[in-house]
Amino acid sequence: MTYCVAAVLDAAMVFASDSRTSAGVDHVSSFRKMRTFAQEGERVIVILSSGNLSITQNVVNILDHHARSPDTRKTIMNLTSMIEVAELLGDTLREVKSRDGPSLMQSNVDSSATFLVGGQIHGERQRLFHIYNEGNFIEATRDTPYFQIGESKYGKPVIDRVIKCTTGILDATKCILVSFDSTMRSNISVGLPIDLLIYPRDSLKISMQRRIEEDDPYFSMIHQQWGAGLRKVFSELPNPDWDVGISQQQ
Amino acid sequence: MTYCVAAVLDAAMVFASDSRTSAGVDHVSSFRKMRTFAQEGERVIVILSSGNLSITQNVVNILDHHARSPDTRKTIMNLTSMIEVAELLGDTLREVKSRDGPSLMQSNVDSSATFLVGGQIHGERQRLFHIYNEGNFIEATRDTPYFQIGESKYGKPVIDRVIKCTTGILDATKCILVSFDSTMRSNISVGLPIDLLIYPRDSLKISMQRRIEEDDPYFSMIHQQWGAGLRKVFSELPNPDWDVGISQQQ
Repeated sequence: MTYCVAAVLDAAMVFASDSRTSAGVDHVSSFRKMRTFAQEGERVIVILSSGNLSITQNVVNILDHHARSPDTRKTIMNLTSMIEVAELLGDTLREVKSRDGPSLMQSNVDSSATFLVGGQIHGERQRLFHIYNEGNFIEATRDTPYFQIGESKYGKPVIDRVIKCTTGILDATKCILVSFDSTMRSNISVGLPIDLLIYPRDSLKISMQRRIEEDDPYFSMIHQQWGAGLRKVFSELPNPDWDVGISQQQ
Repeated sequence: MTYCVAAVLDAAMVFASDSRTSAGVDHVSSFRKMRTFAQEGERVIVILSSGNLSITQNVVNILDHHARSPDTRKTIMNLTSMIEVAELLGDTLREVKSRDGPSLMQSNVDSSATFLVGGQIHGERQRLFHIYNEGNFIEATRDTPYFQIGESKYGKPVIDRVIKCTTGILDATKCILVSFDSTMRSNISVGLPIDLLIYPRDSLKISMQRRIEEDDPYFSMIHQQWGAGLRKVFSELPNPDWDVGISQQQ
């Protein structure tokens, strides 16, 4: 399983992905699910992926391969709009799925894959897209400035409560880490390390890229204080004063 | 969609279900998803259901119909063990699905259904079972003393943090209501009223059965204080002190 989040804020974009990959519980390994394509002053593009690892890796490797040997081709490094990047990613996903999908289906292997792709190309605003398994896509808006892929439900409530366009970079980063903590607590197939990337709006430069490992003191603090804080809020909520029909209440 | 929770604590069993039913967004209505079969001093059995409404209703109606006209038949009102009740429920589910399933499948209608059934029969301890769509089932244990069916993920983290066998009745009830609040906030197809039932261990009598409507003051308080409490815990978590590459932080 996988958990990835990306948010497009007024001040910046924040991207985060876990790195646990499992093919059955006895075949668990670690793969980076975040790939960046950047040229300072010109473009910063970040791709997060979820789903069948051979499909997602192939898609990103093809994008990378073409970008390194462009000829006259349109590539992720020379397209002039993020919407074209989303289209290219969707098309490449369809290409890989039409190549590998039928064989996977014969073995009843799930070939589904989804992506988040976001960033900014010089001359354009920062943009974030969610590419579905079928290659179609939607864009994040001011109403819904974030997307999740993978195991999204456990970590959604805190994001729903906190992240707006106007949320600050550090608050959003903190919120996303809390969201990862909730997800990892409820689904062991999502796991550390977390790759975290911050792109400040209009900077055309990645300002921070960080890998959060087991021993990261900030993430450990989040894990402990958030858990303790939740338990405290819970214990301070009054119990119902309903007569539950028994005299002795714990 | 649906959300149902049942917990088997040392002190009691707590059952809760929402009551929103939707067949598409333009056909939303309210159906009770909790059914009780009780005879004071002899048995208390509670069934919570999730899935295709025609399937779940038929299953429970057949159980009810047979209980009212037992002849020499084994029914939910005369079986002597909760495990037989779970078997009967699974068998009845298979019966209804073999009758209606093929026609539903022809129209691509999802016929899946799952149940929680719990309670106590005189001479036995209190027990809780989760009946899967295929009619097979598992029992709650001291390690995992609760089950959820339906839209379970949004409301799972708080239950994971709070509910143990040793949790008190009112704490567990409060926790389950917080869990419903989180679920309803993230999935509009889960909705009030909530049916709530408390069965104190070995009492062989339902001690409280309550319907929580829109204007319920306790649930409104939970909703507000939990949300405010979460925001407060979140705001008190320190921001990361990482250099994110920009001078002005919000």
